[in-house]
Amino acid sequence: MTITAPQGFRAAGVKAGIKASGNPDLALVVNDGPLKAGAAVFTSNRVAAAPVHWSRQVVSDGRVDAVVLNSGGANACTGPQGFQNTHATAEKVADVLGISASDVVVCSTGLIGEHLPMDKILPGVEAAAAGLSEDGGSAAATAIMTTDSVAKEAVFTGTDAEGKTFTVGGIAKGAGMLAPGLATMLVVLTTDAQVPAEELDVVLRDATRVTFDRTDSDGCMSTNDTVVLLASGASDAIPSAEQLGAGVTQVCAELARKLIGDAEGASHDIAIRTFNAASERDAEVVGRSVARSNLFKTAIFGKDPNWGRVLSSVGTTDAVFEPDQLNVSMNGIQICRNGGIGDDRGLVDLESREVLVEIDLQAGDAEATIWTNDLTHDYVHENSAYSS
Amino acid sequence: MTITAPQGFRAAGVKAGIKASGNPDLALVVNDGPLKAGAAVFTSNRVAAAPVHWSRQVVSDGRVDAVVLNSGGANACTGPQGFQNTHATAEKVADVLGISASDVVVCSTGLIGEHLPMDKILPGVEAAAAGLSEDGGSAAATAIMTTDSVAKEAVFTGTDAEGKTFTVGGIAKGAGMLAPGLATMLVVLTTDAQVPAEELDVVLRDATRVTFDRTDSDGCMSTNDTVVLLASGASDAIPSAEQLGAGVTQVCAELARKLIGDAEGASHDIAIRTFNAASERDAEVVGRSVARSNLFKTAIFGKDPNWGRVLSSVGTTDAVFEPDQLNVSMNGIQICRNGGIGDDRGLVDLESREVLVEIDLQAGDAEATIWTNDLTHDYVHENSAYSS
Repeated sequence: MTITAPQGFRAAGVKAGIKASGNPDLALVVNDGPLKAGAAVFTSNRVAAAPVHWSRQVVSDGRVDAVVLNSGGANACTGPQGFQNTHATAEKVADVLGISASDVVVCSTGLIGEHLPMDKILPGVEAAAAGLSEDGGSAAATAIMTTDSVAKEAVFTGTDAEGKTFTVGGIAKGAGMLAPGLATMLVVLTTDAQVPAEELDVVLRDATRVTFDRTDSDGCMSTNDTVVLLASGASDAIPSAEQLGAGVTQVCAELARKLIGDAEGASHDIAIRTFNAASERDAEVVGRSVARSNLFKTAIFGKDPNWGRVLSSVGTTDAVFEPDQLNVSMNGIQICRNGGIGDDRGLVDLESREVLVEIDLQAGDAEATIWTNDLTHDYVHENSAYSS
Repeated sequence: MTITAPQGFRAAGVKAGIKASGNPDLALVVNDGPLKAGAAVFTSNRVAAAPVHWSRQVVSDGRVDAVVLNSGGANACTGPQGFQNTHATAEKVADVLGISASDVVVCSTGLIGEHLPMDKILPGVEAAAAGLSEDGGSAAATAIMTTDSVAKEAVFTGTDAEGKTFTVGGIAKGAGMLAPGLATMLVVLTTDAQVPAEELDVVLRDATRVTFDRTDSDGCMSTNDTVVLLASGASDAIPSAEQLGAGVTQVCAELARKLIGDAEGASHDIAIRTFNAASERDAEVVGRSVARSNLFKTAIFGKDPNWGRVLSSVGTTDAVFEPDQLNVSMNGIQICRNGGIGDDRGLVDLESREVLVEIDLQAGDAEATIWTNDLTHDYVHENSAYSS
């Protein structure tokens, strides 16, 4: 179940020959309407890729007819030529589909600082257009993979106040550079709900704020992050913003969880829940500081409940707390109590892939959970040879 | 040449039995005067260890008679009992030396969240006092090592306006948790110059700001960082603040360089020089953002001049720059020019241990250099099994 589960969408994924491996590397998603609403959020990195600059303009009027995505090259830090290549890709999509290039979102992922092979991209767009299908969502999900080991898809079905059914679908890629502001990745979401573009934008921002924005695999922010949400209005359902928002958030949460579960070289998926915080922002800041501690992350890899590395990270933040009132639990064992030694650290079992770290700030009633991974030999291995 | 090179100091390092390995683990440094001035800077981590809380009080009056340091336990996150243990250690030093406990700086390093074995510490203080010697600096340097592979010492000799000689000596330990605000470590500096305590404080802060504060091995800030500077006034020299500052800065720079050179598991020492910045602060922020990128650090480990990972880190900062005006060189090859593709990345040679990354912001005339290390299999290995 994927982005073609909602009515009014076709998709394709093809082998354009961009990747040396010969794996699928170009995807196309088309919104057949009747509504052609679109919204997107992008990386907050100031060094943004050419497709991000292009697509920001495309979505600014709330209309998106198609999304073209390539793996095998980020088209970032490629100067004016890079922007021309993005433009040419959108024009090609517009040509073959009979739409306007200004309604075509472009996404790229791969190595930074290399030009895209346009002699592969443009024929690839033709092949993808020829292969568009109402069952093509999974092929698109596969074609956007880089170091992902599995394609990532999710779907949600809900009803509006009158009991009419709407569907939300999503695909995602991303396995490294998962970090702040927006977890580094490409995500396409679709829905057949009838929803105005301005409402779509609010729903998307609310959903990403509590899902992808709280996914921080390695603290590194990409130049290419894009999450785009398309609405076709092809169903009869007119859900409220709350009803649609619940669906979009659930799909985003499921995709974010799958990104963490497939992060490069990771052996543990770690949820850092900070509670009794003075504000949600404080809880986020504390969780993120721990999620970015290499010493904490290597300790979890070594199945070592080294809670001192949690406290030393919390201590670097400006969140409201008193050092002698901090409590920390790992997988249910409270190993730090009131800033000091708690239960026996030998009781903590870190054998399972999922790890829950709970930080009690004793400063209020807000909370937030940040998802991250451990830091492993395989992470170092995969990322030490990425471009070579 | 070490902390006992300046006149007026004795030191010792002994095996107190704190470390399971049986290696030396307790050091004592005594200022025999006639001047007994002292200044110190400490971690800015809000979760500070008991000895940091204690020693902040000790140095507040500008007088320090002795420094006692133990490895094998950080005495951090150990509650009221931890503070009592620090106090008892200072009292023991005071007893055996016939001085006041309120003039004894205490430093600890090792695992967080465990109580110190006071039945080993107190006899160790007696043994160290009995072993104090004017040649004892190197023994002290050895006794404060944790995962360091070598003892770290440095010395500087200068003259005042009248040609009279003064000496500055230093020892340091630290191999992981080297990071912001203050590179995580213990450092003792000595000088026989005649200098008032208030001037000593200014000299020390100026020196650490451009040396240890710009050393960021793994982005993790310790709970125990301490740099203490003692002046005995035992020479005839009365250097100006500039003359003394130059010596202290040189010793700090040499020790900081040795810390980076011995960082846990590192295979490259990386200098990130950011220049043409609008301010020194901007240059520091940009350098630190790159120094903390795990993707950049693993690329250097893999000898991969992946400059996209430099730009994507620079893009997360608020420094003054235009993305299309950034230049990046590695070991002299300008692989990124005006935010885009520069010279052939294949020309970059990353075989040597020392790597120089130069980032040209084209935004002003300030600059700063941050020192860091690559992220390696050995870093993950050493830190995944530290407390187990």
